[in-house]
Amino acid sequence: MREKMTGKELLQFLEEHSPQEIKDALEFIHPADILDALEDYEGDQISFLSRLPNDVLATIIEEAEDEDKGEIFDLFSQDQKKEIISEMASDELVDLLETMDEDEAEELIQSLDEEEAQELKTLMNYHPDTAGGIMATEFMAINNSMRVKDTLQHLQQYGDEAETLSYLYILDKNGILQGVVSLRDIVINKFETPLKELINPNVITVSPELDQEEVARIFQKYGFASVPVVDASYKMLGIITADDVLDIVVEENTEDFEKMSALAHNEGEYLETGVLGLARRRIVWLLFLMVSATFTGFIIQGYEAALAEMVILAAFIPMLMDTGGNAGAQSATLVIRGMALGEIAIKDFATVLFKELRVSLVVGFALSAVNFLRILLFNRDLMLGVTVSIAMLFTVVVAKIVGCSLPIIARRIKLDPAIMAAPIITTIVDALSLVVYFRLATMIYM
Amino acid sequence: MREKMTGKELLQFLEEHSPQEIKDALEFIHPADILDALEDYEGDQISFLSRLPNDVLATIIEEAEDEDKGEIFDLFSQDQKKEIISEMASDELVDLLETMDEDEAEELIQSLDEEEAQELKTLMNYHPDTAGGIMATEFMAINNSMRVKDTLQHLQQYGDEAETLSYLYILDKNGILQGVVSLRDIVINKFETPLKELINPNVITVSPELDQEEVARIFQKYGFASVPVVDASYKMLGIITADDVLDIVVEENTEDFEKMSALAHNEGEYLETGVLGLARRRIVWLLFLMVSATFTGFIIQGYEAALAEMVILAAFIPMLMDTGGNAGAQSATLVIRGMALGEIAIKDFATVLFKELRVSLVVGFALSAVNFLRILLFNRDLMLGVTVSIAMLFTVVVAKIVGCSLPIIARRIKLDPAIMAAPIITTIVDALSLVVYFRLATMIYM
Repeated sequence: MREKMTGKELLQFLEEHSPQEIKDALEFIHPADILDALEDYEGDQISFLSRLPNDVLATIIEEAEDEDKGEIFDLFSQDQKKEIISEMASDELVDLLETMDEDEAEELIQSLDEEEAQELKTLMNYHPDTAGGIMATEFMAINNSMRVKDTLQHLQQYGDEAETLSYLYILDKNGILQGVVSLRDIVINKFETPLKELINPNVITVSPELDQEEVARIFQKYGFASVPVVDASYKMLGIITADDVLDIVVEENTEDFEKMSALAHNEGEYLETGVLGLARRRIVWLLFLMVSATFTGFIIQGYEAALAEMVILAAFIPMLMDTGGNAGAQSATLVIRGMALGEIAIKDFATVLFKELRVSLVVGFALSAVNFLRILLFNRDLMLGVTVSIAMLFTVVVAKIVGCSLPIIARRIKLDPAIMAAPIITTIVDALSLVVYFRLATMIYM
Repeated sequence: MREKMTGKELLQFLEEHSPQEIKDALEFIHPADILDALEDYEGDQISFLSRLPNDVLATIIEEAEDEDKGEIFDLFSQDQKKEIISEMASDELVDLLETMDEDEAEELIQSLDEEEAQELKTLMNYHPDTAGGIMATEFMAINNSMRVKDTLQHLQQYGDEAETLSYLYILDKNGILQGVVSLRDIVINKFETPLKELINPNVITVSPELDQEEVARIFQKYGFASVPVVDASYKMLGIITADDVLDIVVEENTEDFEKMSALAHNEGEYLETGVLGLARRRIVWLLFLMVSATFTGFIIQGYEAALAEMVILAAFIPMLMDTGGNAGAQSATLVIRGMALGEIAIKDFATVLFKELRVSLVVGFALSAVNFLRILLFNRDLMLGVTVSIAMLFTVVVAKIVGCSLPIIARRIKLDPAIMAAPIITTIVDALSLVVYFRLATMIYM
């Protein structure tokens, strides 16, 4: 039924048709697909774009990835820029303005009418990662004295401007939120039904300062299409829509994956980032961790005498290090993910610690036992088995305690818990477990 | 404006009010909040639930986490179960039935009317992780000859049954999808507008076999509230709604985090899982990785003679191992995440490999240089510096090549790329890098 156009086909279409035909056709092509065609096309992008009406250009810039928005926008003249931004939704416009330098943004804002300009400046004052930073101000406010039919007529007149119509908001004359009606309830009830009967006074709202991860959790819990943002006096400031939340969840997860693997954040896609760009994301963390790991090396140097006498001790270093790293990563991941999903809070620290202690004892004893038997079988050395197995038990316990504690401590001191993941934990656990391993060995053998 | 009830308050409310009053009040309380109150309450849950009407019970079971659905449902008599399921949405009912044994599910399905029973059986035949497995069949089909006003009257009569009304679907007499109209377009256009003018014939659809991760990507790309599922002849089978997709994204990400940290999957929340349950999730992978790491130990044992002569070599094992692990984890994470987001495909293997090779040379040389200078400065041993630095360069290159390759190979052989993350890669890279390290050392020193 539906075939996507390639960049070439789209250009051909644009060249062969009148502005009105183009406008009619584009109504039913999703801007995300126009953007795809644009990216595929090898030629001059402006030859496409100059043929598109401003409202379509506005949606294309809205759809583009944050790092591409500015690039597309900059293809246009200052005058056309002003026309394009007048077609954009407030939340999307804020995203675009934030990619520019201050003077340029200021000049564009001045071209809007005064009310809009004021609204935008307020929006730009919120932190981009909060409810205020992601909300749009184009919501649909209605009067609670209407009936269904009046409401529909009101929507016919003013509905076009709203970001979403899934919910209509009932405000008093001071803009204080009184209740909400879903569009679904409007359309399934008879024309004569008074709105009052359909209004839900128990509105779930968020404050503009709420972190976007918390906002996402509210959407996940309630399955809403949008949520109103209100200040402390319940004055309605804006709405957040579900499609933006999906992007936020994906973005926040990507950032967590990166932090947990010692990668600096980068906006661009892998295949589109150059070698030096990719190297830069990795080298700082690798250097830091490499230098940290040399301390573990100093520990081993400190036991050079013991090692010279019992070279076999070196053979168990990799196993102890890897097991410590893995055991710590497991605990850290469970806690980081649990906190990201709102299942674990700072107040649960003692519970988590006690739980991880018990889990580590169960897991540690099992691994030590397997290990002890293996050394008896292959190395036929009882005291070596005892040394390695005790060190193993200690390693697992320390790994799990450190692994579960650091992310919670990070959250407590307002750092992102995901920073305290496998790489840092491995480095710490390695040092601790090798100290114990060599101390044990010197006690037993010397 | 809105205060959540505690479990105790809710019970009190239920005890003090008549069934009709309860029904009226519950209309404006979100089932997710009733579920919260229920979980908080220490007493007998059935004393709450028996006072609630069946349609509310149905939404509560729909809202519950998959692992709790069956537990709540089992509190009711067989007769009430049948009444509850008749109130449930088809996609949610499938999720519930999949938690039961076959006979029990079969008996419940038989209690539904024949058409519904047939529909459910079809739904249950799709894999739960595909579009077919997550779709609902309650969509709103309309006739393209209507005008806006007729459409609204049609919705007043039949709209209540649909899962969502965000989009209305135009089907021909064989059920073939012809186009879509958004509810937004219905309500912002005049009553006399013919539907034909509002219909978008370019519908973006998914096939029932499509993996749910791909479905999520379509929602992310287009920002839709729902997407129709059609078979190869465009016969409409069902719809998938955005709120389900948000859950899927969160769930898929959690599974990736777990796999990447060598954790077996578990449905329950951390704080609600027992110590043995938590230990079980971790021990199999830890054992497997521990045994794998012993091979690295054997490698070291093979160079016992060299090590006995140059005990200092042991001091650099932790640094080489940790850097290898971290460098490999970085590459693996970028590739795993890139594939999950659809940014990297199997066909990009050569590009990725070549890119990682160059990145690893840049990063490897930088780390080696720092390392070489450090050894010259602190150990004052040129040949030691050369040995460790070459081994370091090799380690970084191998780690990045292995790290980027294994996830793509896993996808190629239809395994989940996230399985091939830090733990396995570290084990492989450790072995390779220590072999090179000790071979180099013996070549240089012996």
